[in-house]
Amino acid sequence: MTGVGIDAIEIRTGKLKLDLAETFAAEMGDAPEKYTKGLGLHASSFPDTYEDIVTMGANAAHRLMERKGLGLDDIGRIDVATESAFDHSKPVSTYIGGCLEQVFEGDLHHANKGERKFACVSGTQSVDDAYNWIEAGRNRGRAALVIATDTALYARDDPGEATQGAGAVAMLIDEDPDLVELSKAQGYGSADETDFLKPQQQFPSVDGKRSVKVYLARMREALVDYERAGGEIHPDDFRLGPFHTPFPGMVRKAAVLAYRHITRDTEIEDELAAEIGRQPRPEGFDDDEAYMDALSEYTDALKETDRYKSWYDRTIDPTLDISRHVGNWYTGSVHVARIAGIKALAEADEDAVGEQLLVGSYGSGAQAEIHVETLQEGWRGEIEALDIDEQLEARYDLTFGEYEEVHDAHNFDEESSVEEFTVPDGEFAFDGWGRMGERKYRYVE
Amino acid sequence: MTGVGIDAIEIRTGKLKLDLAETFAAEMGDAPEKYTKGLGLHASSFPDTYEDIVTMGANAAHRLMERKGLGLDDIGRIDVATESAFDHSKPVSTYIGGCLEQVFEGDLHHANKGERKFACVSGTQSVDDAYNWIEAGRNRGRAALVIATDTALYARDDPGEATQGAGAVAMLIDEDPDLVELSKAQGYGSADETDFLKPQQQFPSVDGKRSVKVYLARMREALVDYERAGGEIHPDDFRLGPFHTPFPGMVRKAAVLAYRHITRDTEIEDELAAEIGRQPRPEGFDDDEAYMDALSEYTDALKETDRYKSWYDRTIDPTLDISRHVGNWYTGSVHVARIAGIKALAEADEDAVGEQLLVGSYGSGAQAEIHVETLQEGWRGEIEALDIDEQLEARYDLTFGEYEEVHDAHNFDEESSVEEFTVPDGEFAFDGWGRMGERKYRYVE
Repeated sequence: MTGVGIDAIEIRTGKLKLDLAETFAAEMGDAPEKYTKGLGLHASSFPDTYEDIVTMGANAAHRLMERKGLGLDDIGRIDVATESAFDHSKPVSTYIGGCLEQVFEGDLHHANKGERKFACVSGTQSVDDAYNWIEAGRNRGRAALVIATDTALYARDDPGEATQGAGAVAMLIDEDPDLVELSKAQGYGSADETDFLKPQQQFPSVDGKRSVKVYLARMREALVDYERAGGEIHPDDFRLGPFHTPFPGMVRKAAVLAYRHITRDTEIEDELAAEIGRQPRPEGFDDDEAYMDALSEYTDALKETDRYKSWYDRTIDPTLDISRHVGNWYTGSVHVARIAGIKALAEADEDAVGEQLLVGSYGSGAQAEIHVETLQEGWRGEIEALDIDEQLEARYDLTFGEYEEVHDAHNFDEESSVEEFTVPDGEFAFDGWGRMGERKYRYVE
Repeated sequence: MTGVGIDAIEIRTGKLKLDLAETFAAEMGDAPEKYTKGLGLHASSFPDTYEDIVTMGANAAHRLMERKGLGLDDIGRIDVATESAFDHSKPVSTYIGGCLEQVFEGDLHHANKGERKFACVSGTQSVDDAYNWIEAGRNRGRAALVIATDTALYARDDPGEATQGAGAVAMLIDEDPDLVELSKAQGYGSADETDFLKPQQQFPSVDGKRSVKVYLARMREALVDYERAGGEIHPDDFRLGPFHTPFPGMVRKAAVLAYRHITRDTEIEDELAAEIGRQPRPEGFDDDEAYMDALSEYTDALKETDRYKSWYDRTIDPTLDISRHVGNWYTGSVHVARIAGIKALAEADEDAVGEQLLVGSYGSGAQAEIHVETLQEGWRGEIEALDIDEQLEARYDLTFGEYEEVHDAHNFDEESSVEEFTVPDGEFAFDGWGRMGERKYRYVE
C-alpha cells in the first residue's frame, strides 16, 4: 500500500462577518489594536440564520465530492468532530449523510457514521481514526470523509467573545493522497484539566490564563512523546507549522516555546549561544523557580533573534492568514491553519512537493497531538481549487445590532425570529423542526 | 502479528435496583407480566447519588487493570462511548483518566483520550477504532481501554420508563487477546433516521414503533453488508448471537428475522420446507405488499419450528440473562449481552475455545453493525473473574418513592438533596462540583 493521508480538503465559512476593529471594538469602547494586535484577529465568521454545523459541514463535503468526482459508494465512513452538537444521542454525521443523499444518486447506508468530541482536538482524532481504518485494511477501497464543524460562540460580554467564529472543514482521507501524507508516528500530551468546559451549557466556562498554560504544557509533552514514538523533529525540516489557533496571539506564544524545545541540543542552539547564551538546564539551578525564571528569560531573548524571527515568519505566520479573518472554528481550527499555510506556498509559487508540516492539534480538557504531514504531488491543484477567498469576500458585514440578533438566533436558550441576511443559493439550508424536535434540511437550488 | 480483540472485560452496575414486577408494576397499576413477559425485564439498575457515568466507568476500568496487573504505561488509549455526557466539550475519558491517576502510580499523559457518540452503537465503534489503531501499528505495544458507560433515563411516565438502566462495561483491546478475537470483516446498515433522539434535552424523544422497524431494517442491511465484506454467515456456525438489547423482547423480534435472513439459500431452508414451505422471494409476487405479507406469514411459522426454537434457546436466550435484571445500558448493552452469553457457556462447563459469536450492535438515528468474534484460550478465566452476580445481589432495592427521588437526583434540571442509599467502599465516588462547574471525584478507601 502507498501512504495514507488527506486526498482533498474543503473549507466553508459562516456567511456573516463581524468586523472586530470596525464594529466590535467601537461598541466595546476598545482600541482596535486590542483585537488586531493583541489577539491577532480582524474579524469573526458567523452562520446566517439558515446555517449551522450541519449545513456548513454538508456544504463543504458536497463541494469536495463534486470537485473530486466522487459518488456515495466511494465513501465508506463519515466522521464528524464537533463540540457544538445539538443532540445528545443522534450524531451530526447522520444529518450530513441525509443531506448528501439529497443531491447524489444512491445512498450511504453502507457507510459507518460517527461523532467525536474532545474540545478542538477531535477533528485530528477523527483523521487518525480514518487513517487507522485504512491501514488496518478495513476500508474495501473506499475513502473516509472527516468533517470538523463548529459554531464557536461565547456568552455575550465573556472575555472570549472576540475570539468567536464558525465554519467547517471537510477532509477526504484516502490511500495515495493528493494533498498530504500523514506520519505513522504521533505524539500525545494529555491530562485531566479544567481550563475550558461546557458543563450542561452551550457557552463555555473558561479560565483564560490556565488555558494558555495548559495549551503550552500539553504541546510540549506531545513534542516529547512524538520523538519517543520514533519521530524526528528538527526545526529546519519543516516548511510549515500549523497549530491549533484559538486566536493568532496564542500561536505566537506557543511558537517560541516550541522553537526553544526543538532547537535544544541542535546546532541552532550552538549558533545562537554567542548572542543569547545556551538554554538553561535544570541541573544548573538550585530550585525550580530559578530554572523557570532563567527559561523565561532565555525565551524572551530567543524571540528577538533574527534566526527565530525568520523561522517564525516562514513557518508559522502564513498559517494564521485565514484565522485572522474568521476567528476560532474549534475542531476546524488546526485544519484551517494547514490550509492557510499551504495556500501561501501556492501563492508564492513554491515547489513544495515533499516538504513537511509539523502539525500541532489541541483540545482543552486537555490534549495536544503532534504529527507530521508531507506535501504530495497534487498539493497545488488541491489548494488552488479552494474558493475560501471568494467566500470571505462575499460575507455579509454585520452591524453591532445585527450581531446581537445573530448571537440570539444561535443561542438555544433564546427565542428568536431574526430574518436571514443572505439568500441561500446552491447549498444546504436549515428547514425548520420536525415532529420529534429534530432539525430538518433541504438543498436550495 | 497475532489477532486483535478483547483481552479482558469488566462490568459495573449502578448500585440501586428498581424491581419492575414488585415495585414498578404495582404503582403503575399494571400486571407484572407486562414487564417480565412483554419486555422481558425484571429489574433496572440505577446509580446511587454518588455514582455517575464517570464513577461506573472508572470503577470498571480500575478492577480490570488491577485484575490484569496493568499499570498506566500499559494503556495507550482511552475511549469512552456514551450518550449521557454532561459536558459539551470536555470528554468523559479525561475524568476517568484523572480517577485512574488517583490510584495507580505514574500518569496517563501519553494516552490518547477520546469520546464517541452515536446512541447505543458507539461502544462497538470505539472497539473498532482501538482494533484499527493496533492493526495500523500505532500502539507501540500498548493496549486500549474502551469504556461504554451510560445512565439510561427516560422522562417519568414515558413509555420507555420501564426500560431504564445504568452501568458501564470496560474492555481492554489488545493483540493476542485472552477473551475474543475480532473479525476484520464488518457489516454496516446506516441511515438518517428519526426514531430516538435527544435534541437539547437529557431525556429521549422516542417513536417506539418506528424504532423497532428501524432496528430490524438496519440490522438486515448490516448482515448483507457483512457478507459483501467477505464475511460468511451460517446460523450453525455461531455458538452465540449477542445483539443490542434495549429490552429482551426487542431481541426476540430481531432474532427470528435474522434467522430467516441467514438461513435463506441454506440446507436449513430446504429442511424446513416440508414443514413451513420455502421462504417467499420478491419475484413470486405482483407487488411489494403481497410479498411483505407472505414474508411475515413465513416468519410467524418459522418462529414456531423446533429447529428455530432450539437455535434461539441455544444462541440468543443466554445473551439476555443479565439484561433482564439491569435494563438498558445504551452503549454498554451489546457488551452486556456478550458477557451474559459467554458466562452461560462457562456455567455449562462447555469447551468453547474457537467458537464464534455473531455480534449485532445498534444505535438509533440509526446504524447497525455486524461483526464476528472468536473465543480464545483464556475465555473461561476472563469470564469467571467477573463479580457481576455479587454486584446484582448487593444492589439496594428501591421503594417507588425512593425511585422517584433517585430519578430526580440524576435529572440535570432538578435540584435534589437525596441522601445516598449505599456506602461507597473501595471505589470512585462523585465528590461535588468545582469552581467552573466541573464534576469532581475521589477514591473512597
